[in-house]
Amino acid sequence: EKKHEIVYRPSLTWSEKAAADAEAVAAFSCSGHGRAYLDSLISDGHTVCECYTCYGGIDCSEFSPGCSADADSGDPIFLEPFWMQNAEDSAIVVSGWHRMSYSYADYTSMSTMSSEVEKYIRKLHSIVGNAITEDRYLVFGIGSSQLLSAAVYALSSQNSSSPSNVVATIPYYPMYEAQTLFFNSEDFEFEGDTTSWKLNNATDKMDVIEFVTSPNNPDGELKTSVLGGKTIYDHAYFWPHFTPIPAPSDHDFMIFTLSKLTGHAGARFGWAVIKDKDVYEKVSRYITVADLGISKDTQLRVLKLLKVAVESDGKQLFKFAYDKMRERWDRLTSVFSKSTRFSIQKRDPLHCNFFNETRLPSPAYAWVKCEREEEDDCRAVLKAGKIIGRSGSTYKAKDRYVRLSLIKSQDDFDLLMLRLTELVSLENGNIESI
Amino acid sequence: EKKHEIVYRPSLTWSEKAAADAEAVAAFSCSGHGRAYLDSLISDGHTVCECYTCYGGIDCSEFSPGCSADADSGDPIFLEPFWMQNAEDSAIVVSGWHRMSYSYADYTSMSTMSSEVEKYIRKLHSIVGNAITEDRYLVFGIGSSQLLSAAVYALSSQNSSSPSNVVATIPYYPMYEAQTLFFNSEDFEFEGDTTSWKLNNATDKMDVIEFVTSPNNPDGELKTSVLGGKTIYDHAYFWPHFTPIPAPSDHDFMIFTLSKLTGHAGARFGWAVIKDKDVYEKVSRYITVADLGISKDTQLRVLKLLKVAVESDGKQLFKFAYDKMRERWDRLTSVFSKSTRFSIQKRDPLHCNFFNETRLPSPAYAWVKCEREEEDDCRAVLKAGKIIGRSGSTYKAKDRYVRLSLIKSQDDFDLLMLRLTELVSLENGNIESI
Repeated sequence: EKKHEIVYRPSLTWSEKAAADAEAVAAFSCSGHGRAYLDSLISDGHTVCECYTCYGGIDCSEFSPGCSADADSGDPIFLEPFWMQNAEDSAIVVSGWHRMSYSYADYTSMSTMSSEVEKYIRKLHSIVGNAITEDRYLVFGIGSSQLLSAAVYALSSQNSSSPSNVVATIPYYPMYEAQTLFFNSEDFEFEGDTTSWKLNNATDKMDVIEFVTSPNNPDGELKTSVLGGKTIYDHAYFWPHFTPIPAPSDHDFMIFTLSKLTGHAGARFGWAVIKDKDVYEKVSRYITVADLGISKDTQLRVLKLLKVAVESDGKQLFKFAYDKMRERWDRLTSVFSKSTRFSIQKRDPLHCNFFNETRLPSPAYAWVKCEREEEDDCRAVLKAGKIIGRSGSTYKAKDRYVRLSLIKSQDDFDLLMLRLTELVSLENGNIESI
Repeated sequence: EKKHEIVYRPSLTWSEKAAADAEAVAAFSCSGHGRAYLDSLISDGHTVCECYTCYGGIDCSEFSPGCSADADSGDPIFLEPFWMQNAEDSAIVVSGWHRMSYSYADYTSMSTMSSEVEKYIRKLHSIVGNAITEDRYLVFGIGSSQLLSAAVYALSSQNSSSPSNVVATIPYYPMYEAQTLFFNSEDFEFEGDTTSWKLNNATDKMDVIEFVTSPNNPDGELKTSVLGGKTIYDHAYFWPHFTPIPAPSDHDFMIFTLSKLTGHAGARFGWAVIKDKDVYEKVSRYITVADLGISKDTQLRVLKLLKVAVESDGKQLFKFAYDKMRERWDRLTSVFSKSTRFSIQKRDPLHCNFFNETRLPSPAYAWVKCEREEEDDCRAVLKAGKIIGRSGSTYKAKDRYVRLSLIKSQDDFDLLMLRLTELVSLENGNIESI
């Protein structure tokens, strides 16, 4: 009879089974090197552990010794432990009949956006001090990805006979170009690098839309507009764990994403903060025409996560996230300080209004340069050292540069440190041997 | 001490609070004329009931006597009671750390699509017998909406000097045209009605993409291709509650949506079944470039709902849904049988392989015609009778037609029946009086 616990608590009915299922699958340890989810594959009636890179076996306990460190993707798994620590406050139960309608009904208007989520986004920006949202419009999108494209549509001159010119400053996030090319609209054309474009054109007479990514992906730099005309500020990384926040951003069109704030890339949720009413209406129209708005299940989850994010005025989430990033940068700089063959971007201290102290930035990515003249394909050099990164040309920079992701799981980061240490330790030996 | 219940059950930890919260909000009755959700507005510390149309007051108990019946939107709320009846099997708990990654990791590939969801979609089609999915590719989208656009991109001739022609047969769903115009691609142009287009063009020499909506929105007809070339079959309504299923659809490009299957329009989830590998790859590319895939939270919920849908070989869900639709059509035809002023579409019986009997279709919408010569704005006529519908011109038909939605909540449908009955009872009186 000791198997059962006698407890006093309010009786649950329809939700208890779902709760028990979720707790059962969460109890799978997968040796600490993988994860089981409610929707993981079932094999022979058993949930299957999904092992992290370089781990295998039925319980993810088997490490592959020769495995490469994968620092390719921007998967923000470094925040997973935070949400495990805050399991109770961040869980949601979605009933089978939760918000089946296309829209939220709140007496005055029909909208596909949750006004509670909107309220918490404004509250968060106010607490963090990274963006002005008073008297601005908000639009939700499927990640920031969808909003990048919506922004270009909204800012392009649809009644003009010549298409708007879209530019970004090298090194830039490749999605800007990929979307513009793929959608192949008559209203705009991708024209590449801002600085080259400025040299070759009389900018004051032309219709230009400039992407400003700040902090920049891949190199983490805080950027401002080169042309000073129509701009789209991609602020995906403008949070206190990646950069000091010197002042709230106050631009006409700013884009943020949950992915790099709370780490929930898989939820596909972003938002735009927009000053002009006409532009706001065009972006809203884009979202409606593209897919009639954002999943209501996702918005319910976003609300719960944002409620945790604003707890203790954001100190809890951002302290965890910043401590993690700073620790990773400390280890990273320690390894690179022993190298003359490889260098990483310089970081300059800035005052952070949120933490109220002067700090170094701790960007999401290391922007690595191969310093030896002959090593002009840095990705290949790192690959030979069992490190997978993204080559500079992905960002229209030279292949002498490689982006390494620092925001993946602890296992991924630890292996990256191991491989980098091995590589750097070889510098005084025979470089042909690696 | 009677306040507490002593129970034996497995002890819950982190999920219990979320479960209790969900059950507490579900216990709000809102007088049966509204709904409270976890993310409903909070006012003075209390969750606010969201009242259905024509109901108000803090508990939604106040009916507005002069209120119009709103039969405008295709919100599929008629299925809400089914999910309330199946509360235990359809609830999910989403942990704070559930699938934070961009992709699912299942040993062999990285994908933004859940392979478990894919498995259940194939199983469902096999049970229902409405589509061939063996040796076909599946792609998930944000509702069917996103896939309509993705389909046009994938089927258009991107290397051609002249854009592909996109057509649909009147009366047609306005989204086809709205998307094609809005995205304004150089690769395709909307050319309107298929039949007119065929008369004016030598179709065999031209690049055409034809939308075939079957059953059709707005009129419920089972349609086939007019031109016999490249087609996109929009099968949103091809489920046994709306139409007999004469045979499985076996077309190159078929689109389905959860919205009209389970009633979860708010979840924004649809899928395409695609025969050709190149086309499949283009559609996948579209989804990636547009927004890096579908919310993982939504996919978890979809999996749970589909598991209920396939229970008892689909008999449970489809019997509920069909009974509800048939009952509504019985009441509707009874009212219209007393009218010479208004008529509705003819329905012809067909054999349904799923229910294994010959039945009348029970479409999602009534396609109403105003028969009097002078009443050529049927929407205005109905509006004067306190009925809100969508005018024929929305579907490029004559305004002598109006679409009335039959799939909204029971309150909405009951009020629609009341207003229609009032209107028809006036036919032998003075028509000026309404």
